[in-house]
Amino acid sequence: MLPILLLSLLFSSSSHAADFCVADLTGPETPSGYHCKNESAVTADDFVMTGLGVPGNFSSMFKAAPKAAFVRQFPGINGLGISAAFVYYAPGGFIPLHTHPAGSELIVVTQGTLLAGFISSANNAYYKTLNTGDAMVFPQGLLHFQVNVGETTAIAVVGFSSPSPGIQTTSFSLFAGNLPSALVEKVTFLDDDEVKKLKKMLGGTG
Amino acid sequence: MLPILLLSLLFSSSSHAADFCVADLTGPETPSGYHCKNESAVTADDFVMTGLGVPGNFSSMFKAAPKAAFVRQFPGINGLGISAAFVYYAPGGFIPLHTHPAGSELIVVTQGTLLAGFISSANNAYYKTLNTGDAMVFPQGLLHFQVNVGETTAIAVVGFSSPSPGIQTTSFSLFAGNLPSALVEKVTFLDDDEVKKLKKMLGGTG
Amino acid sequence: MLPILLLSLLFSSSSHAADFCVADLTGPETPSGYHCKNESAVTADDFVMTGLGVPGNFSSMFKAAPKAAFVRQFPGINGLGISAAFVYYAPGGFIPLHTHPAGSELIVVTQGTLLAGFISSANNAYYKTLNTGDAMVFPQGLLHFQVNVGETTAIAVVGFSSPSPGIQTTSFSLFAGNLPSALVEKVTFLDDDEVKKLKKMLGGTG
Amino acid sequence: MLPILLLSLLFSSSSHAADFCVADLTGPETPSGYHCKNESAVTADDFVMTGLGVPGNFSSMFKAAPKAAFVRQFPGINGLGISAAFVYYAPGGFIPLHTHPAGSELIVVTQGTLLAGFISSANNAYYKTLNTGDAMVFPQGLLHFQVNVGETTAIAVVGFSSPSPGIQTTSFSLFAGNLPSALVEKVTFLDDDEVKKLKKMLGGTG
Amino acid sequence: MLPILLLSLLFSSSSHAADFCVADLTGPETPSGYHCKNESAVTADDFVMTGLGVPGNFSSMFKAAPKAAFVRQFPGINGLGISAAFVYYAPGGFIPLHTHPAGSELIVVTQGTLLAGFISSANNAYYKTLNTGDAMVFPQGLLHFQVNVGETTAIAVVGFSSPSPGIQTTSFSLFAGNLPSALVEKVTFLDDDEVKKLKKMLGGTG
Amino acid sequence: MLPILLLSLLFSSSSHAADFCVADLTGPETPSGYHCKNESAVTADDFVMTGLGVPGNFSSMFKAAPKAAFVRQFPGINGLGISAAFVYYAPGGFIPLHTHPAGSELIVVTQGTLLAGFISSANNAYYKTLNTGDAMVFPQGLLHFQVNVGETTAIAVVGFSSPSPGIQTTSFSLFAGNLPSALVEKVTFLDDDEVKKLKKMLGGTG
Repeated sequence: MLPILLLSLLFSSSSHAADFCVADLTGPETPSGYHCKNESAVTADDFVMTGLGVPGNFSSMFKAAPKAAFVRQFPGINGLGISAAFVYYAPGGFIPLHTHPAGSELIVVTQGTLLAGFISSANNAYYKTLNTGDAMVFPQGLLHFQVNVGETTAIAVVGFSSPSPGIQTTSFSLFAGNLPSALVEKVTFLDDDEVKKLKKMLGGTG
Repeated sequence: MLPILLLSLLFSSSSHAADFCVADLTGPETPSGYHCKNESAVTADDFVMTGLGVPGNFSSMFKAAPKAAFVRQFPGINGLGISAAFVYYAPGGFIPLHTHPAGSELIVVTQGTLLAGFISSANNAYYKTLNTGDAMVFPQGLLHFQVNVGETTAIAVVGFSSPSPGIQTTSFSLFAGNLPSALVEKVTFLDDDEVKKLKKMLGGTG
Repeated sequence: MLPILLLSLLFSSSSHAADFCVADLTGPETPSGYHCKNESAVTADDFVMTGLGVPGNFSSMFKAAPKAAFVRQFPGINGLGISAAFVYYAPGGFIPLHTHPAGSELIVVTQGTLLAGFISSANNAYYKTLNTGDAMVFPQGLLHFQVNVGETTAIAVVGFSSPSPGIQTTSFSLFAGNLPSALVEKVTFLDDDEVKKLKKMLGGTG
Repeated sequence: MLPILLLSLLFSSSSHAADFCVADLTGPETPSGYHCKNESAVTADDFVMTGLGVPGNFSSMFKAAPKAAFVRQFPGINGLGISAAFVYYAPGGFIPLHTHPAGSELIVVTQGTLLAGFISSANNAYYKTLNTGDAMVFPQGLLHFQVNVGETTAIAVVGFSSPSPGIQTTSFSLFAGNLPSALVEKVTFLDDDEVKKLKKMLGGTG
Repeated sequence: MLPILLLSLLFSSSSHAADFCVADLTGPETPSGYHCKNESAVTADDFVMTGLGVPGNFSSMFKAAPKAAFVRQFPGINGLGISAAFVYYAPGGFIPLHTHPAGSELIVVTQGTLLAGFISSANNAYYKTLNTGDAMVFPQGLLHFQVNVGETTAIAVVGFSSPSPGIQTTSFSLFAGNLPSALVEKVTFLDDDEVKKLKKMLGGTG
Repeated sequence: MLPILLLSLLFSSSSHAADFCVADLTGPETPSGYHCKNESAVTADDFVMTGLGVPGNFSSMFKAAPKAAFVRQFPGINGLGISAAFVYYAPGGFIPLHTHPAGSELIVVTQGTLLAGFISSANNAYYKTLNTGDAMVFPQGLLHFQVNVGETTAIAVVGFSSPSPGIQTTSFSLFAGNLPSALVEKVTFLDDDEVKKLKKMLGGTG
């Protein structure tokens, strides 16, 4: 029975590349993701992200601490069609209205009570109170939000259908960036006073 | 040389289905689109949409008349990864801030002058004045807008990377639908007065 | 300003279908998923799965209680490229070696300590001890497993890159189904005694 | 150890649908393929096509007998991203210039000698003599052909990257269909005499 | 409320890469497109192509001036699933029979009258006269054409379902490239005289 | 008629990149495949793999000689969604139980008699005896095998729905790699004796 010729050798290592493509964050990106780290340098650590469940920076503005495991934080998911996030919400905390331009989201409440919902293209809001153990899906690209409506800290584990779903927060897009106030007002019908007040609060220019 | 056996017969009509899938709008949808109309009933008319370039309903609110050629208006594009729209803008007219949850947009200005732009996840606004013959792309799912900044009517032909790109207009999502005002305020930082005023103006409830 | 013509009306409801496609589980499937439930009958409940976090049936064989939120359990995710699962592991509990033929998996440990890993095409095992808050990814189609190596109950929230990732458990494929023992032995090199013993234990026939 | 709860039961049969989707050819198609046959009625026969290697109808015109295993002939491949064909070429036989609008082709010569090639968008012809055991790829949508340049029968096994790659044979499109001769001439620069002669030979109208 | 922690910072800039991937044309391509230009160097100009509507080079052979906005001319569309073209047709002008190997096309006539059509795998020609404002779709990979049948200049704006749809013009493939005449004749049934005449006219070799 | 302006020039060589992307194996990979070789250096040889039909290394362990045409062996298929393999089976030869993590397989028997089958997620084995000219499909990611049950050499040509389908052989994953025996036993229910015997036979460590 010697020498033993393994099938993987017979196939000339042909399949290795199909298995995974750990991101080499030092190189350029492509539309399908980052370059793959050389397989010989890949270890188990590349597929693990430690501390995702440790709260991220706490925002006094919305009393929540989201933490992302997108491809830039977790290179092992490059090209694999999935990412995650962990969110801690203090009582009254919330994640403001936002979209993920390139992915759907599935949220699982692991502690506490959230009021969560999304708005459809037909301007219908679909929202519901979620208790511990409940899950909700926010279809790709649609506006959605979560609010901790319980008395205690709430926690959620979130999955996304892309390693780079993106995140665009409506009020930050309007009031924390550089789109001139006059344009913001024109394309949203918001009052000049309101726009300027929020630009001041959120740090926008223009 | 008789009888002549054509390759298409030799292959048993096997390829017809791959060519196209004109939507049967009377049946249910699937994640990939509508059922295909029976090929024997398909005619050239199924691949043509007449009058796309005739202005649609004119909105006195934003002085523009957009008209879509999405799959529901143009069943022939079902499954083909593309759709279109025609937009007429009166002087001062605009298309308010919106996203297409499921598609990128490429706009071509065929008449007049538009100020067009989009906002990235990093809250950077990329905007520019487009003259006749200029084109601009708005990446999938990101907030964008156009404003006629010229003295005359402007016209644009628009392509989308999906037969059903969807359209979510931010101010309509917030103020023309049924998301309760208290929730709108919570997740956007907008003032109660502003929200209620715009809800009244745009017809929202809750 | 009357009558108010909303953009969503101007676009003739064209975008609704793009938003979501809640599965009608009573109809046939297609390669892209189930038919869409009629949008007029869709409510917020369609996007929520209650009780995902309530442990599923407990297996005395592997001392774990997995619970899936695949499209058949959670019709709202149809066509959205994502699904989830909740797994409770008693001390010593485990999920036996398996693959998801149609999806990658991202596991987040929300309680306890798991030893988790996968095996690559090159027969390299990538495994590591995961503590509360750690995450690991198992690339599409590869053999993987988790073992509760802590003293207490462990819990994990899992995301998949498909609404129907599938699950093929190696030992059940070999010993709980109908592949004849002689064939199992031929294609795995396992001994006849071993195969028959496990077939008896796991309920296989043939 | 009783009762034994199998993982597949714990997961509530959730993964079955992901495995395969045998086409129900009696129902309508969708952009992603045919409806799935009910899994309980699926047998091993659904995944097997007998006689693919038996020559198809022989064409005296091009002295070849192609036989397709596209989804209409082989329902088991529905949704699986692959199809096949078997081609017998008498000495001097050939497959005329054609494209597959929806798929790439990989040809493997199992007997004889073929001259095979394709033409790129830059009008470069890439062609070569293939002997038994050689393989060649024709990228999606490009014009390609094979000619038996040996003294004996040649045989090829062909794979396609789609269950419905389609096949459009240039001369049949021009001369065997209903595109009026005047239009054929206008858009190809071919002479009226040539077009009419070939229309007569290949059965075209108009 | 200070310091203000923005959600985009909380998420560690994780979403930027998902927004867009402006092509770096100086680098190599990948199957999904070009490398992305560094985001910090991206400006609004990257998303704009000026002068698409200025006629391209005029061909005295077919009296038309097409101009493409494919990824090489318009790097901002890299990875976004869409491209465009502008075509001017003098009276009697036309675009000869061609395919786009990797994309569907949606044409919108913005001026004049075109006779446009495509041929299916079943050799059926679907063609129709399009007036100003009419649109037509040509499904992926199929032969199609347009002819200005009006008295005046015609203009069309065209969208494609890929940033690199490709273009293969049948007569140029046959007569303007390097496929030897004998092979052209063999695989198309065209006469030797005709092939040689057209090769001479169109510049082909071989 | 001089100078002749070809459509390919009018379109500024824009479509070339869409045609193909021959792998540059010296560069890094991306999730969508290898970098493209510069088109000017591409020749017909890049699209041909000679000797695929020459048996590969013969395994005395399973009396078969598989040979792959995956992207590493056949760079011309990079990005084209297809690959192939040739397998020679001596009498009694077989390909042990394995999966392709990233692709479906369509096997065509060109000589001899094989018993081939796959196991579904529901643990149902679908298997059948295939004679010369028969074809069978193994859906993506599922365990499958072939055994030469005839008296003579059997040969099969195989297509895959990916340029890099991967190959994970169950017994090699368990017994030829580095997963510690205790873990193998825990997650498969196999006996310690059996695992150690097979690890010794197949060269595994741990």
